[in-house]
Amino acid sequence: MTERNISIEAADRTAVEDQGVEIVERKGLGHPDSICDGIAEAVSRSLSQLYLDRVGRVLHYNTDETQLVAGESAPTYGGGEVVEPVYVLIVGRATKEYDGERLPVDATALSAARDYLNEHIPELDVGTDIVVDTRIGEGSGDLQDVFGEDGAEVPMSNDTSYGVGHAPLTETEEIVLTVEEELNGPYAADHPELGPDIKVMGKREGDLIDITVAAAMVDAYVEDLEDYDDAVERVRAHVGDVARGLTDREVRVEVNTADDYESGSIYLTVTGTSAEMGDDGSVGRGNRANGLITPNRPMSMEATSGKNPVNHIGKIYNLLSTDIAESVVADVDGIRDLQIRLLSQIGRPIDQPHVADAKVVTEAGVDLADIEPEIRSQIDDRLANVTDITRRVIDGELSTF
Amino acid sequence: MTERNISIEAADRTAVEDQGVEIVERKGLGHPDSICDGIAEAVSRSLSQLYLDRVGRVLHYNTDETQLVAGESAPTYGGGEVVEPVYVLIVGRATKEYDGERLPVDATALSAARDYLNEHIPELDVGTDIVVDTRIGEGSGDLQDVFGEDGAEVPMSNDTSYGVGHAPLTETEEIVLTVEEELNGPYAADHPELGPDIKVMGKREGDLIDITVAAAMVDAYVEDLEDYDDAVERVRAHVGDVARGLTDREVRVEVNTADDYESGSIYLTVTGTSAEMGDDGSVGRGNRANGLITPNRPMSMEATSGKNPVNHIGKIYNLLSTDIAESVVADVDGIRDLQIRLLSQIGRPIDQPHVADAKVVTEAGVDLADIEPEIRSQIDDRLANVTDITRRVIDGELSTF
Amino acid sequence: MTERNISIEAADRTAVEDQGVEIVERKGLGHPDSICDGIAEAVSRSLSQLYLDRVGRVLHYNTDETQLVAGESAPTYGGGEVVEPVYVLIVGRATKEYDGERLPVDATALSAARDYLNEHIPELDVGTDIVVDTRIGEGSGDLQDVFGEDGAEVPMSNDTSYGVGHAPLTETEEIVLTVEEELNGPYAADHPELGPDIKVMGKREGDLIDITVAAAMVDAYVEDLEDYDDAVERVRAHVGDVARGLTDREVRVEVNTADDYESGSIYLTVTGTSAEMGDDGSVGRGNRANGLITPNRPMSMEATSGKNPVNHIGKIYNLLSTDIAESVVADVDGIRDLQIRLLSQIGRPIDQPHVADAKVVTEAGVDLADIEPEIRSQIDDRLANVTDITRRVIDGELSTF
Amino acid sequence: MTERNISIEAADRTAVEDQGVEIVERKGLGHPDSICDGIAEAVSRSLSQLYLDRVGRVLHYNTDETQLVAGESAPTYGGGEVVEPVYVLIVGRATKEYDGERLPVDATALSAARDYLNEHIPELDVGTDIVVDTRIGEGSGDLQDVFGEDGAEVPMSNDTSYGVGHAPLTETEEIVLTVEEELNGPYAADHPELGPDIKVMGKREGDLIDITVAAAMVDAYVEDLEDYDDAVERVRAHVGDVARGLTDREVRVEVNTADDYESGSIYLTVTGTSAEMGDDGSVGRGNRANGLITPNRPMSMEATSGKNPVNHIGKIYNLLSTDIAESVVADVDGIRDLQIRLLSQIGRPIDQPHVADAKVVTEAGVDLADIEPEIRSQIDDRLANVTDITRRVIDGELSTF
Repeated sequence: MTERNISIEAADRTAVEDQGVEIVERKGLGHPDSICDGIAEAVSRSLSQLYLDRVGRVLHYNTDETQLVAGESAPTYGGGEVVEPVYVLIVGRATKEYDGERLPVDATALSAARDYLNEHIPELDVGTDIVVDTRIGEGSGDLQDVFGEDGAEVPMSNDTSYGVGHAPLTETEEIVLTVEEELNGPYAADHPELGPDIKVMGKREGDLIDITVAAAMVDAYVEDLEDYDDAVERVRAHVGDVARGLTDREVRVEVNTADDYESGSIYLTVTGTSAEMGDDGSVGRGNRANGLITPNRPMSMEATSGKNPVNHIGKIYNLLSTDIAESVVADVDGIRDLQIRLLSQIGRPIDQPHVADAKVVTEAGVDLADIEPEIRSQIDDRLANVTDITRRVIDGELSTF
Repeated sequence: MTERNISIEAADRTAVEDQGVEIVERKGLGHPDSICDGIAEAVSRSLSQLYLDRVGRVLHYNTDETQLVAGESAPTYGGGEVVEPVYVLIVGRATKEYDGERLPVDATALSAARDYLNEHIPELDVGTDIVVDTRIGEGSGDLQDVFGEDGAEVPMSNDTSYGVGHAPLTETEEIVLTVEEELNGPYAADHPELGPDIKVMGKREGDLIDITVAAAMVDAYVEDLEDYDDAVERVRAHVGDVARGLTDREVRVEVNTADDYESGSIYLTVTGTSAEMGDDGSVGRGNRANGLITPNRPMSMEATSGKNPVNHIGKIYNLLSTDIAESVVADVDGIRDLQIRLLSQIGRPIDQPHVADAKVVTEAGVDLADIEPEIRSQIDDRLANVTDITRRVIDGELSTF
Repeated sequence: MTERNISIEAADRTAVEDQGVEIVERKGLGHPDSICDGIAEAVSRSLSQLYLDRVGRVLHYNTDETQLVAGESAPTYGGGEVVEPVYVLIVGRATKEYDGERLPVDATALSAARDYLNEHIPELDVGTDIVVDTRIGEGSGDLQDVFGEDGAEVPMSNDTSYGVGHAPLTETEEIVLTVEEELNGPYAADHPELGPDIKVMGKREGDLIDITVAAAMVDAYVEDLEDYDDAVERVRAHVGDVARGLTDREVRVEVNTADDYESGSIYLTVTGTSAEMGDDGSVGRGNRANGLITPNRPMSMEATSGKNPVNHIGKIYNLLSTDIAESVVADVDGIRDLQIRLLSQIGRPIDQPHVADAKVVTEAGVDLADIEPEIRSQIDDRLANVTDITRRVIDGELSTF
Repeated sequence: MTERNISIEAADRTAVEDQGVEIVERKGLGHPDSICDGIAEAVSRSLSQLYLDRVGRVLHYNTDETQLVAGESAPTYGGGEVVEPVYVLIVGRATKEYDGERLPVDATALSAARDYLNEHIPELDVGTDIVVDTRIGEGSGDLQDVFGEDGAEVPMSNDTSYGVGHAPLTETEEIVLTVEEELNGPYAADHPELGPDIKVMGKREGDLIDITVAAAMVDAYVEDLEDYDDAVERVRAHVGDVARGLTDREVRVEVNTADDYESGSIYLTVTGTSAEMGDDGSVGRGNRANGLITPNRPMSMEATSGKNPVNHIGKIYNLLSTDIAESVVADVDGIRDLQIRLLSQIGRPIDQPHVADAKVVTEAGVDLADIEPEIRSQIDDRLANVTDITRRVIDGELSTF
């Protein structure tokens, strides 16, 4: 039925949901590492679009190395200020000339970074609170004709690499992810005192889930310590509500546990991110491609954000393996835990991995042999449409961190 | 009558107006060197204001070293783009902490630079076409309590230095200055195709004045070569009108003489400044404190822009000597050419220069002895009110380049 | 017997050695990510030493964010040149003033980076082939009195974090690690054509181990393509010898598989690292604390290199968990696979983790209950001596990548 | 006899030597502005040489914009340290690719800067005390075929510009120049406590010459305040000896007048330059092409250092006018003061200036008409050999600051 090397077998372990101790973490949008991921990916998308607009195809580039150097701030109830600006260096290579025409790579990257920051870290005034600089070298000159207006040819793998994805999320994973998205979404819209630098850690021991949130408060919207305390308490209550809506297990929530009200040491910021006062950041140091850090599961070290989505296998296979795992679980009943691992072989078409490796924990009473054909078919189908991943990344439909 | 060491004597030369050959140059607002002067002075003013607002007095700083690294652009009729951004590094020292409070020196400097660029080089998009960065070190910690809310104490000179000023302007000087101000003012307001990078050179041989203008055109407002040629011709005509209104001598005007229509090599830019395509700039390399470069006259090498206006003698004496020369000529009849030179002595009050030295060429029939007391009195008075210079600089009333 | 929360249980999985597919990777010393790890850790060690020398205790710092921007080179048989230098930015925070005395933090960091580069990437001329710059901010001012001349007080955890370690290495892990160390050690000493940028990937499927090596050759020691081919073949043969000495499984070796002799596209470099021609790097993107990337095993995302070894739990627990696993396996017979995970609790002494979690796969015929007390005792003992890790890091005895 | 437009006339002023007040200044080799001049010129020479070696002709470049950002130091008797390194940014444009070959422009520039610093500011450890970085853009691509192995074609002027030179030096000028060269030469060789940052100011009023020297002392060679005071006194005595050997006028010498022994505020440094502790610098802000700042004489604002010596008229005409003045005075008797001014015309050969303008003050009893033919012939001859200037600059025979 297919020539693809797809291996499906029972996992030699219990499902993560059933393991005794589980740890899950998510660095929210405003965390310095996530800021770098977000900028790198925004730069990548805008360069892909630039090449498509100008040349009709995505040319060679790689911008997966943004570095953030923290600033220094003086937060004060009612509104303080940044005293030393944050410094962001966008690093990478890109094709700057094509067919005799110069392409505005650096200006495009700077513009993408500014737009991203304005949208997601709005309290940070780009140009005074944060300086964005670039060091983008000339690419190797190897042009990638593969992903263009005519679409669809499958590129060759540029490296021997692998990606790994999982589904479904465990309850703890679901909670950690949802809490951050909820806080940085609807909740923040109603509560301007909550900044985007929200770190969520979930620890489950048996049936007890501890959710620990570190949430930067924005000083302009906080009048005094009592006001701050109220804000923290509101977050705590909201996180509890969100979490308990996602599990029947016992949930405990702690917010800003490092605060010391006596000494006045609290998590108060001017801009809503710790990047303003001492926390550096860089790409690929935080969330994996599925938005989480999950030490109970195999993870890839590859930074997904910022890479070329056309033929950079480190990016494509991490996104694709997650995508496959999710779609298999959505379509095939009876799976309790699924891990997909894709291993590339340099020089072969990326829809033909060296091996696509599925490890399945079935629900009680389900026989893997019964669902194996469906799983295989689904994997095969997704691999055949691998270039969808590229298009969805460029269109911003897939998150990389 | 006064203890100040004021020396007034006849110049041992003819007035510049009467010399055989005269050369005068002005680099307009959008010239890379002038951009640096402008940013440095804007930063200086904003820091003075920051200190006055926060501390009630101007603390130690010096920001007279902005460096501009040119970008690269691709101008096109109808509107091109900057492909490599301009890079500006604001350099200096400033007091960043006072009485336990951190002061937002870098953010203030960045904000001042951005505002300045937005106002004067509006086609240059700050953050994408141009990156502004800072390297401002901690000042020496010597606090300058001298210029504060209570005003008025006269500071000590920080250096052995001198300043030199002249009045009145010769016709050629007047023309060069006025042409640039006129073009960058009312004319540009009506003619958006004219960018701010306007360099004016005046050469007078006897009674023939040659005005050579290099004027960057903004591509978005130029449709084709014919349109460009019309724009150049309009500038030429306007410069001629302006110049002839200021002299009875013969005037010849040339604009963009380096253009070569055959090869398509013309002075077309995206942003109206050559900083976008290869011309670097830095503070103190262009116009002197009176806005001109005048090789027929003694000039100071000191960069006036960006320096602390409270006790930085290199700044104050250049501005003050010019101010004195102008006010003497305005008040005292019979002067054809006046040069004022102020020499400081380190550690003495700045209203007590080591020597204030006036060289006068009188109008025909005027005896220097007859006007000498008036000149002396005027000089003495201006020196007594030296701190006015400081206030006027901070208030932005005095141009430094 | 102890108050420490130590949990020991059987792993719910097979030993990695017994799994069907295993992937292992090591980025050698000259890989751009490893260069950053190496510089960051060298800077960290030198700052610890600086503080001990000057103040008698390690003050607050964190320098785990070095960024490398690749250069551009023109390799040629017999010796080419770097045409655009590599740029390295050392990022972090450190205490720069203590008790009124200024401490030479930046100069110390620059010196450490230079020494490190000179020793490990000797073909790279620091100052011309590579520019090293710093952006190290002032630390928070919280002083860490905990690790000083008087030694021994146990600091509090600065974060809720975890570390994870494993032992023993599988054959594939052992091979990958040894191959790189061997090539970058004795082999390179005898074969100057082999540069330090050596990437080793091991893939085991059942009992077949594929070792893929990417090895940068130094052009000065390579005369022509034939010479290059010989050099590659020598590496291939040597790697085979090393690997086969460590396993009875079948071993296949490939070196520089991306080479294309027809087109002349080979892995020839001027300095022995791909940083010279397009590969950027940063800290924490490559090897984990045990020197390997092991997707078959849980890994921590924390960058270990560059962090303060006194109280930075992300560093200490990764090193300590590895150290514990190795010492347990060395001392206790019958363990086939051991994973140690340490979870910190913010504000508690670091020798009292929230949980120390051991997952054991015993050798066939061994009952976990029989060896559990020994394991517990060993873990307990190592935790009690946690500050040994700090000392060993400062003394350079422990590798972090 | 010649077609060159050479104008020779009597100066309408007295010789500077005979004017009442004269001011002369020289910033020594170690002054931050001179460091920048020196680096920029060293970079220029090395790029010229690079192009000659590789391509056989000098290609387009311009590197006249080095910026120095001061560091911070902690000098101590017996030897202190630099705590924040000096930062130097080499700025410019250069041709980086020729005939398909990449040229190592940045590495060459960095190497030249390092060599220059090692030779002239030896106490400054390049790489730790001072970081040297580059931002050299791609040149415009206009190739300059004009100055190559075959030598000798005369290039066209690239700008409308002018240069100005003088001879002979007045006594005060001679003293200021000689004092700095003597101190930074033989004296420093014997007295390691004297650093290269030596600023010399000469002021002559009538027949009284005041020489004020600011001399940075190197702390490693100074034991205590008494030792420092001895060192200052030795300099004072030596300067007096040198100066009195060059004039019969009365000479007064002051050294380090800003010192305040009471408060311990003295001019003690770690590296012998004030760049280490707060004094920024940049190209073209200090000495003119003849090594002096001479407000009594017309000066050009053009930075001479760092410019391309082949066709950059701002550089060539400043060096050439000085060279002509000196050679005329050497060959023609009876000249008390000679000023040569060369005005270029864009697009004309540089040996055909728009006007070469000599202003002569003859010795008493000498008739200008008698020596005018000799002067004219000498000027004509030097103009004919204008390309000698280029060669001598590349060979390092001509100083530019």
